[in-house]
Amino acid sequence: MSKSNVVIAIDAMGGDRAPDIVLEGAELALKARPDLKFILCGDEEVLKQKISTGSALLHAARFRHADRIVSMDAKPSQALRAARGTSMWEAVHAVKEGEANAAVSAGNTGALMAISKIILRTLDGAHRPAIAALWPTQKGRAIVLDVGANIEADAPQLVEFAIMGEAYARALLGVPRPKVGLLNIGSEDLKGRPEIREAAKLIRESQLDLDFTGFVEGCDIPDGMVDVIVADGFTGNIALKTAEGTAKLIAGFVRGAFKRSIWTKLSALVARPALNSIKDKLDPRTVNGGVFLGLNGLVVKSHGGADAFGFAAALDLTQRLTRQPFQEEIAANLARLRIQGCDRGAEATTTAGAIS
Amino acid sequence: MSKSNVVIAIDAMGGDRAPDIVLEGAELALKARPDLKFILCGDEEVLKQKISTGSALLHAARFRHADRIVSMDAKPSQALRAARGTSMWEAVHAVKEGEANAAVSAGNTGALMAISKIILRTLDGAHRPAIAALWPTQKGRAIVLDVGANIEADAPQLVEFAIMGEAYARALLGVPRPKVGLLNIGSEDLKGRPEIREAAKLIRESQLDLDFTGFVEGCDIPDGMVDVIVADGFTGNIALKTAEGTAKLIAGFVRGAFKRSIWTKLSALVARPALNSIKDKLDPRTVNGGVFLGLNGLVVKSHGGADAFGFAAALDLTQRLTRQPFQEEIAANLARLRIQGCDRGAEATTTAGAIS
Repeated sequence: MSKSNVVIAIDAMGGDRAPDIVLEGAELALKARPDLKFILCGDEEVLKQKISTGSALLHAARFRHADRIVSMDAKPSQALRAARGTSMWEAVHAVKEGEANAAVSAGNTGALMAISKIILRTLDGAHRPAIAALWPTQKGRAIVLDVGANIEADAPQLVEFAIMGEAYARALLGVPRPKVGLLNIGSEDLKGRPEIREAAKLIRESQLDLDFTGFVEGCDIPDGMVDVIVADGFTGNIALKTAEGTAKLIAGFVRGAFKRSIWTKLSALVARPALNSIKDKLDPRTVNGGVFLGLNGLVVKSHGGADAFGFAAALDLTQRLTRQPFQEEIAANLARLRIQGCDRGAEATTTAGAIS
Repeated sequence: MSKSNVVIAIDAMGGDRAPDIVLEGAELALKARPDLKFILCGDEEVLKQKISTGSALLHAARFRHADRIVSMDAKPSQALRAARGTSMWEAVHAVKEGEANAAVSAGNTGALMAISKIILRTLDGAHRPAIAALWPTQKGRAIVLDVGANIEADAPQLVEFAIMGEAYARALLGVPRPKVGLLNIGSEDLKGRPEIREAAKLIRESQLDLDFTGFVEGCDIPDGMVDVIVADGFTGNIALKTAEGTAKLIAGFVRGAFKRSIWTKLSALVARPALNSIKDKLDPRTVNGGVFLGLNGLVVKSHGGADAFGFAAALDLTQRLTRQPFQEEIAANLARLRIQGCDRGAEATTTAGAIS
């Protein structure tokens, strides 16, 4: 696999409207990056029928047959028992075999994480993988992790998340030295949960050379105060969902306000350019793609309900990441941490997987 | 104290711009409810000088002298050592003495909670007080608690918060049977943290007759799916701050979108009625007032940076609550819980106060 020919294994059967929007998304992504190659995992007959003759996708893709599908509502443990031979399994396995640089699926998140852990295994020094989400901010975009892989995280795990998120931010956001903050309920050193205070201490004492800001609060995420916000998966998920819900609420207020009377309806026509630019900024499709960090291989989760544009955005994010040495950076920093002994205790902690 | 003459003890020296905005806020509140009575706690000389002769406030208020102030950045433990004789202490003490129906302060939250606990003590059966915040939703307003009094909460404590929040919602929102949800990262029964799953079980097994919806996610808060959202103070605070930050972000996007060109600036003029109605809906001043629940007396925290309008909103919220038997309802439900033995274990749990 040369750097110029990125190969992405796609779980073509995963997601609310698969395989149609998956294939449409792949076509869209190809328009932007004609050098991309895909491995479409799923029912070969069905997929071939769905792709129109002459489509660029036929030339850019090869098929990896799988006649089974992971159900969207299966529990991770259930999904795992019947995972072999599913389109999701095949996509992740293509990464393991070195056939693909990364795997993308819009399927069941918990199952995807469980399958990825089984097939790819966690990176040396990473006790648990994390899911990193992109977050629109006043200054551009930030990365928040973990947003749901673990319901708890102890101090050494939070430090690992910081390392993983920092490398990801450098790779994707193009920030040479991403600022890293720990999500807490106050910015003072003495506030908040003990594991978060301990994680701050560990990062400061480490020789990791992270640009560590200290504690950040919920309001600092959309503010863009830091590039990477570190939290356990429970807290990160609550923050992410609350922000999504708030954005939806306000979008509803805006729509409602312009529908109140003939006058406001007319004013909406006049204000359309401005209103459209707000809509674009809040378009969740542009930040689609939850990246699984801490595995021996790259797996990206597209939102299950994303449309073709959203799926294409996840593919674009994936191909960008494959062109960056961020996995190597993570591995190197985790190794440094191990040498310093800062990962002490992580293994002894019982953390029940949020998704298992 | 008759029901028609509500007396509110005001910490006149607490808040970023005290006493000026506090006095202005009190005057505003009086305009809406001329029957209100105040006890203004603070430097009597200073306060009297600030109130203009002929102001209705002079007739509605009496003074309770305090020549000291709790500093806005003092830690709760520090504040507590020097609390006696401060304006905050006097305001809360007026409630204890039965001089006032409630106390309101825009000062240091942690100090106010610590002082309130010392003076008023927690209600029988409430292991810890909680701070409840109002939250604008698609359907009106919801109540979220705890938003910062405790960094952790075990299952019995979460059940107590549910009881306190439910009574508060009935009193303030006028909903006869408020729907109650537990904040979690998935709506399925098996998801999330163990203490939250256990709390759901306790509520279902109790004979409290709460309208309990089960688990809600972050996105369900602004959606208005339930009237009361229960969380530990860490999670609730993260959600609240994240929502505030998101609203600010989007407000910034809206402003920016209408400032891009001459055309969009002109369209903003045309769209002003619609834009103003959005601004009103998102005005944080209308949801000002964090209510301390679980104490033998009512204490309300106004945002430290709130203006006179915001402080008046907190006073209005307070006077509404004093006219409702919600404290009695909380006490009765906590007693019922105790009889059922559902509060088992709460005392054994070590919870470090987020604010202590």
